[in-house]
Formats: sequence, structure tokens, C-alpha cells
Amino acid sequence: MTENNAVLIGKKPTMNYVLACITFFHSGAKEVSIKARGRSISRAIDVAEVVRHRFLPDVKIKSIGIGTDQLLSQEEGNSATNVSTIEITLAR
Amino acid sequence: MTENNAVLIGKKPTMNYVLACITFFHSGAKEVSIKARGRSISRAIDVAEVVRHRFLPDVKIKSIGIGTDQLLSQEEGNSATNVSTIEITLAR
Repeated sequence: MTENNAVLIGKKPTMNYVLACITFFHSGAKEVSIKARGRSISRAIDVAEVVRHRFLPDVKIKSIGIGTDQLLSQEEGNSATNVSTIEITLAR
Repeated sequence: MTENNAVLIGKKPTMNYVLACITFFHSGAKEVSIKARGRSISRAIDVAEVVRHRFLPDVKIKSIGIGTDQLLSQEEGNSATNVSTIEITLAR
């Protein structure tokens, strides 16, 4: 892929991220990736569902991938915590 | 599919669901579906990642699907709330 339009999901309201996705598509993007990890994952799926059901019915889910990131916590020295990740690619 | 081994993710500790998946595979299942909705979705991904990375390296993610369920809330009469869902199918 040459283009790389990614929306990183954090703790803001779902509609903020929905708007970010729609803006990418309206500016001509063919694909938008929604990325999240940990507890934000359920919000990432909300965003994908709202975008394609309420705003852009021609947008399809191209792929969904899950994975694990290792976080090195600063509190407990050298212990590592695993956090799950998701990447949903929407395409029109 | 004739077989239908589903693990429904709720609010219990992640390892309970991991154990349920492993039990299905050890009893000869070729496929196990992990289903969750709403805030349990991130736990569903944790379960899938722990099963395949820590316990059963020969298990692969066959498919991931997302969707929306409509909940009719009893509190506010006839208003409907949408909740996102995920189904992760693991196969060996």
C-alpha cells in the first residue's frame, strides 16, 4: 500500500473518530485503517460499524487483523505486559 | 459448518475463557468460535491471542467478523441501543 490513512482510537467520543474516517474518505482515500489496543478495541469496532451503516454504505470491511503488543511498564522495572491490538481496514 | 463450538465472552477473568477454548480443542474440535459484544470485545481478542501464542501454537485465526446487535432497553420504553459484536473463529 502506498497510501496509509490511519485513525488511532483513544478515549475520545466515538463520533470524533467516525468523523476522522469520513474526512479521509471524502478527501479521496480508498482505504482507511482503524487501529486500537486494549480497552479501546470495542470503540474501534463501534467506529467501523457506524461509518459503514450510518454514513458511508458503500464502504466495506476489507480486513480485520488482531495482534499483541508488549508494553514495558515503568513501574515494575523490567516486567512486560501484553496488550491486544486490532486493525480494521475499511475500503470503498 | 456442522460443528458449533462457541465460547461466549462475559465478565469473568480472561483465563476462564482461554481454558474453555483449550478444552474444546483437546476434545477434538477443529474450530472454536469466540463471541463477544460491547466492552467484552477486547477480552475476546485477549483470549484468542493467549490461546494461540501461549498454549496452542498450531491454532490459527480462520476469520474475524464484526457486526451490530440492537438492544431494546427496558428502561426507556421502545428506544433501541446498538452494540457492536465480534466473532473470532480459531481453527487448527
